Amino acid sequence: MSKLVKSSKIDKTFISQSFENLQEAICQELEILDGKAVFQEEKWDRPGGGGGRARVIENGNIFEKGGVNFSNVHGLLPDQLSEGLGLSPGHEFLATGVSIILHPSNPFVPIIHMNVRYFEMSNGDKWFGGGIDLTPIYIDVNQAKYFHQSLKDLCNRHDPSYYPEFKAWADNYFYIKHRNETRGIGGIFFDRLTVNPEFTLEDRYAFVKDVGESFTQIYKKLVNENRTKPYGEAEKRWQLIRRGRYVEFNLVYDRGTKFGLDTNGRIESIFMSLPPQVKWLYNYQPQPNSEEEFTLSMLRKGIDWANL
Amino acid sequence: MSKLVKSSKIDKTFISQSFENLQEAICQELEILDGKAVFQEEKWDRPGGGGGRARVIENGNIFEKGGVNFSNVHGLLPDQLSEGLGLSPGHEFLATGVSIILHPSNPFVPIIHMNVRYFEMSNGDKWFGGGIDLTPIYIDVNQAKYFHQSLKDLCNRHDPSYYPEFKAWADNYFYIKHRNETRGIGGIFFDRLTVNPEFTLEDRYAFVKDVGESFTQIYKKLVNENRTKPYGEAEKRWQLIRRGRYVEFNLVYDRGTKFGLDTNGRIESIFMSLPPQVKWLYNYQPQPNSEEEFTLSMLRKGIDWANL
Repeated sequence: MSKLVKSSKIDKTFISQSFENLQEAICQELEILDGKAVFQEEKWDRPGGGGGRARVIENGNIFEKGGVNFSNVHGLLPDQLSEGLGLSPGHEFLATGVSIILHPSNPFVPIIHMNVRYFEMSNGDKWFGGGIDLTPIYIDVNQAKYFHQSLKDLCNRHDPSYYPEFKAWADNYFYIKHRNETRGIGGIFFDRLTVNPEFTLEDRYAFVKDVGESFTQIYKKLVNENRTKPYGEAEKRWQLIRRGRYVEFNLVYDRGTKFGLDTNGRIESIFMSLPPQVKWLYNYQPQPNSEEEFTLSMLRKGIDWANL
Repeated sequence: MSKLVKSSKIDKTFISQSFENLQEAICQELEILDGKAVFQEEKWDRPGGGGGRARVIENGNIFEKGGVNFSNVHGLLPDQLSEGLGLSPGHEFLATGVSIILHPSNPFVPIIHMNVRYFEMSNGDKWFGGGIDLTPIYIDVNQAKYFHQSLKDLCNRHDPSYYPEFKAWADNYFYIKHRNETRGIGGIFFDRLTVNPEFTLEDRYAFVKDVGESFTQIYKKLVNENRTKPYGEAEKRWQLIRRGRYVEFNLVYDRGTKFGLDTNGRIESIFMSLPPQVKWLYNYQPQPNSEEEFTLSMLRKGIDWANL
C-alpha cells in the first residue's frame, strides 16, 4: 500500500476502498474484544446515488449496542447544504467514511466515537475530516490521561501542531451548549484538513489512516481495564442519564447526523449512534461529593488531560 | 371574566394571568385523575427577562412523568430569532403560555401534548398559537375518532373553518420527516392566529381559552378507558420504542423546544417533555399483522379520523 501512496494513487476510489477495508478490520477486532456478539450487516443504497454497509453489534459481553458504518454517497448536493457551504446550487459531491459509536453495557466502560471521512466536490475541492472522542460515564483521571496521551502520540507522528489544535476543536465541537457541558472528555476533531499547506493529499491520508487504525488499539485498554468492574442499579441509572445527554448532542448539534438527515441517508444507519436504553429524570442532581458529581464537574472545555 | 373580555381588558398582563390560572386548574384536575402523585413546583427566572413556574408529576398511578409549564418570558429578541421572523435586530418580545406533555406508564394510555401561547412584539405584532395532539402507543380507531370529534366540536364553537385548517396544520407540524411518520394521530395546531381578519383579539382569546379548558375533559375519557388494561413486556417495549420517536421529533423538529433553547429558557423545563425511559433498537420491525404494525400503518397525514 505504501507503494500505491508514493505513486499517487490517492483518489476517491482508493480512499473509499481503504475505508471499506478499515470497517472490516475494526469489526473483526471488536468481535474478538467482545467475545460473544457478532456484527449483523445491511447493505443499503441511497436513492440519489451511492450507499453503504451498516454493521451493528447488539447484546454482547461488552457492547450493549454499537455500530460501525461505512458509506460512500454521491450525487447532487442538496440545496440547503450548498447554501451552508456558500455555493451556488447544482454541485455534485462525494462523501465517504467510516463512523463508529459503541455503547457498552457496563457503566465503567466509556462510550467511544470515531469517524474518518473524505469529501470531494465537483468544483475540485476535496478534504479529509475525522476524530475520536471518549464519553466516560465515570471519569477516571488516569484513564483520561492515557486516552489523551495516546491521541497526542498519534498526532505527533504526523505534525506537532495537530494535537493542540484538534484537541481544542474537539472541546468546542463535542459541547452541549444548552447544558453547558462537554459530551465527555473530548479527544481530537478535525474537518477540511488544510493546516500545513505544503502537506500533500498523501500526507493527509496517512494521518487519517493512522487515526482509523489506532482507534481499536487505544480503546481496547479502556475496555479491558473496566469490563469486569461490578456495578449496581445506581451506576446503571447514572449511565442511562448520561446517555440522555449523548442523545441530546446527537439530535440537536451533531453535524454528521444533520448531514445524514439532509442528504436522505439510511435512517437506521444514522441513528445506530443512539443508545439502546436512556432515561430522562426531571431535574436530577448528583449527591454532593459523589463520583457522579465529580464526573459532572470535569465535563468542561480546556482541561489539559494529557498533562494532568 | 366575561365582563373583563367585553370591556377589552385583553392585554398581555390579563392573558398571562389567565394562563397562570389555567396551569393551576389543570394541575388540580390531573392530580385528581392520577390519584397518587402530586406536582412538584419550581419557579425560575430567565436571565434576559421574565421566568416561569414549572410543575412536574412523576411516578403516579397514571403518569410516569408529566410536566405542566407556565412561562412568561420577555426582553430583547435574540438575533437568530429576529432573522427567522424577517426583522431587524433590536426588537423586544414577550411570550407567555402553558405547555403540557404527559407520559403515562400504561402503554394503552396515550401520550398527550397541549400548548396555548401568546406572543407580542415591540413593533405591535401580537398573536396566539396553540394546539393539542395525541400520541397513542396503540391506535384504537374508536378512541381516535372520539378525540378528533371532540376537537372538531371545540373548534366549531368558534369558527367552522378552524377544525379542517388546524387539523391539516397538525398533520404537517407533528411529522417526523426522517421516518416518514406522523408523531401520533395529530389533532389541532395553529400559530399566528389570523384567519378571519374581522375577529378581534377577544374572539381569538376566547378560542385559545376554550382549547386550554377543554384539554383535561377530552383527555380524561381516554385515560379512564385505558388505565386498567393489563400489559406485559412486549407492550412496554413497544412503548419505549415509540417514545424514542417522540424524542426524535422534539429534539430535531419541535419549534417550541428550539425557541426555548434559542432564548436560553430553563433547560429542565424545556426538557420535561422528554420521556422518562426510552429505547432505540436497531432496525426494529413489528411482526406482520400485529397491533404494532397496524399502529405504524396509521401514522400518516390526511386521515379523516373524525369521519372514519
